Amino acid sequence: MAQRVINFNPGPSALPLSVLEQAKSEMLDFQGSGMSVLETSHRSKNFEAVLDSAIQRTRRLLGLDETYQVLFIQGGASLQFAMVPMNLAAGKPVDYVDTGVWSTKAIKEARLCGKETRVVGSSEDMQFTYIPEKIVINPDAAYLHITSNNTIRGTRWKSFPDAGAVPLVSDMSSDIFSRRFDPRPFGLIYAGAQKNVGPAGVTLVIIREDMLKRVPKELPTMLRYSTYAENRSLYNTPPCFSIYICELVLKWIEETIGGLDQMEKINEEKAAVLYDYIDSQDFYRGTARPDSRSRMNVTFLLPEAEMEKDFLAGAADAGLYGLKGHRSVGGLRASIYNATTIEAVKALVDYMKHFAKGR
Amino acid sequence: MAQRVINFNPGPSALPLSVLEQAKSEMLDFQGSGMSVLETSHRSKNFEAVLDSAIQRTRRLLGLDETYQVLFIQGGASLQFAMVPMNLAAGKPVDYVDTGVWSTKAIKEARLCGKETRVVGSSEDMQFTYIPEKIVINPDAAYLHITSNNTIRGTRWKSFPDAGAVPLVSDMSSDIFSRRFDPRPFGLIYAGAQKNVGPAGVTLVIIREDMLKRVPKELPTMLRYSTYAENRSLYNTPPCFSIYICELVLKWIEETIGGLDQMEKINEEKAAVLYDYIDSQDFYRGTARPDSRSRMNVTFLLPEAEMEKDFLAGAADAGLYGLKGHRSVGGLRASIYNATTIEAVKALVDYMKHFAKGR
Repeated sequence: MAQRVINFNPGPSALPLSVLEQAKSEMLDFQGSGMSVLETSHRSKNFEAVLDSAIQRTRRLLGLDETYQVLFIQGGASLQFAMVPMNLAAGKPVDYVDTGVWSTKAIKEARLCGKETRVVGSSEDMQFTYIPEKIVINPDAAYLHITSNNTIRGTRWKSFPDAGAVPLVSDMSSDIFSRRFDPRPFGLIYAGAQKNVGPAGVTLVIIREDMLKRVPKELPTMLRYSTYAENRSLYNTPPCFSIYICELVLKWIEETIGGLDQMEKINEEKAAVLYDYIDSQDFYRGTARPDSRSRMNVTFLLPEAEMEKDFLAGAADAGLYGLKGHRSVGGLRASIYNATTIEAVKALVDYMKHFAKGR
Repeated sequence: MAQRVINFNPGPSALPLSVLEQAKSEMLDFQGSGMSVLETSHRSKNFEAVLDSAIQRTRRLLGLDETYQVLFIQGGASLQFAMVPMNLAAGKPVDYVDTGVWSTKAIKEARLCGKETRVVGSSEDMQFTYIPEKIVINPDAAYLHITSNNTIRGTRWKSFPDAGAVPLVSDMSSDIFSRRFDPRPFGLIYAGAQKNVGPAGVTLVIIREDMLKRVPKELPTMLRYSTYAENRSLYNTPPCFSIYICELVLKWIEETIGGLDQMEKINEEKAAVLYDYIDSQDFYRGTARPDSRSRMNVTFLLPEAEMEKDFLAGAADAGLYGLKGHRSVGGLRASIYNATTIEAVKALVDYMKHFAKGR
C-alpha cells in the first residue's frame, strides 16, 4: 500500500485517488483491449469514446449550448497567450486586465504577436493583491481578456466584468470546474489541465462559433483553432493519456461529487475553513484583499519570512507538501483545487495552529 | 493478469511491457514521494531528475556532442512542420525532399509560414514507394529537410544525403533510436514520441547551437526554440508524464536492450523475418521498392483488396492488432518499432502463412 502525502502543489497538483487507482488498474489493459491507453491508437473506437465523453462531460458540467466547441490543444496556457490574439484579433485592438504574472505574460504575447494591446484595468499598484473594479470597456475591442483566478497572489474574479457586446476571453487554468458561471459572455475560455482537470500536457479550449469565423487562414495549421474544431481535436495525434485522465476527473466531478454545484459548495467550505482560521488570529496574515480572495490558492505570510523554512519542514514531517509560495513573491500558499479534500484542509489548519503555538 | 495482445499500431504504438509495469507500480507513489508522477511539480527534484536523465540518455544513445541541446516540446511533429521554417529560415530559401504524406505536410506548412520553399527531390511519380536518389543540393538553402522514415508507404532513407555546408533537418518521428547514424550533419532533428520513444503528447527536438542563433526574437515565446533551450524545456509546465514514460523507454533501450547498436541489430532481424517471408512467396506483395524498404513499417498487399477484411478479422482472432494500412493508401501495414519483439513478428509471419494457405 502506497504511503500517500497531502499535496498542496499549485500545479501539477493533487488528483482524486479514485482516478489514479483506475489509471493504475487499466495500465496494462485498457477496457479489455489488451493494450495500455498509452499504446492505443487515437483513431480507435476505444479512444474516440474517451474523447467524446470528455467533451460531453465538459458541456454538461459547464452548461455549454450548441454554439460552443470543446477542444484539446497542446502547449499549455502559455501557447494560448499567443494563439488567442493570433486567431481572434481580427484587425481590432485587444483589451486585457492585468491581475498579475499570468495576465502580464498574456499581454506580453499579444504585443509580441503585433496586436494593438490595451491594458484596461490593473492591480499592479498594490502588487496584484486585489481584482480591479475600474475597467475601461472599449466597444471597439476584439475581446476583453481576464485571468479568472490568479494562483500567485491568490486572487479571483468573484463575478466577471460586463463588457456588453465585446466577448470575454478568460484564462481559467486554475479555477475551471470549481464553480458555476454563465458561459454566454465568453467567446473563448482556456485552461491548462494540470490544476483542476487532469495532468500537465493538455489545455482545454472552449470556443464560441462566432470566434471561429475570425480565424485567419494564413496561420500555421496547428495554430488555428479551426483545425481543432473541424477535426474534433484529431487533426494530428492528441495527448491521449492526458485526455484520458481528464475524462476520469470529469467523471469523478459528475458522478462521485455530484456535479458542479456540489463541487462549488465543497470548494466554498474548504476555503472558508482556511480563511476563517487566518482571520481569527494574528500570527498568520492573508495577502489577498478579502473581497478578492481566491478559493483555489490561499496565500499567507508568517510574522517573519525567516520562519518559513521551519514551517515547511514541520509541514513535510506532518505529511503536508507543496506549501511554498511562488518563487516570484515568496510567502506561503496552499493550493486547494477540486481534488483536495476538506480533511486535507483541516489537517493543514491543525498544523498551522500547532506551529503558531510553538512560537 | 491482463490479457495482452500483439500490437502493430503505427503510433501511438506498443511500449515495452516492463515500462508499463513500472508506470503501473509507481502510479500512486512515485519514488517514495507519496504522490503520483501525474501530481508532481515540474520544478521538484524528483521530476528534474527524470528530465535530466531523459536528456542524458538521449545524448548517450545518439552520441550527441556538446553543440547539441535536447528539448521536449508539445504539439507533435505537425507543430514542428511550422516551427522549423519559422525559426530556421533566416531569410533564405528552404529545401525539402518530398517522400510522402508527412513530407508533403511539412512543405505545405513552410509555404504557409511565407517561406520560399523548394522541393529538391520527390518520389511522387511512383506514389512515394521509394526514396529519390536525385536531389538538388542548393548551397543557398537555409536547410535541407527530409523525413527519415515514411510510415505510410513504408520507406526509409538508408543513408542520408550529403548537403555539404547546408544543415540537414529531419523528421525522425518513426525511426529515431532504431538505428545508429552520424548526427553531425543535422542542424535539427524532431520526433513525435509516440512511435519509438514513448506516448503521444511530447516531441523530442535535438538542435545544434548554430541553429539557435537563427531564432527570430519576434516569434511568440512558445514557438521559439531558444525558449526551450534557455529554460531546459521548463519555461512553462512540460508534459511531465509523457517525458517520464520516454525516460523509462530510453532506460530500457540502454539497460535492457544494451544500447543503440544492439537495438539496431534486433530491428534488422525483425524486418528481415518479415521481408524474407514476403519475398519467398507470391501471395503477399511488398509495396515499397526493396532498396527503400523501411525497417519500422512493413507495407504489403494481398492478391485482392477484398481479402483484407478477412485477413484483419483472422489476425484479431489470433491476437494480432493494428495491421490495417493507412486510410490514405489502404493495404496492410505492420509497424514493428523498437518495442515490438521478434516473437511478435514471427507470430505475424505464422499467421500470414496460415491465411495464405487457406486461400
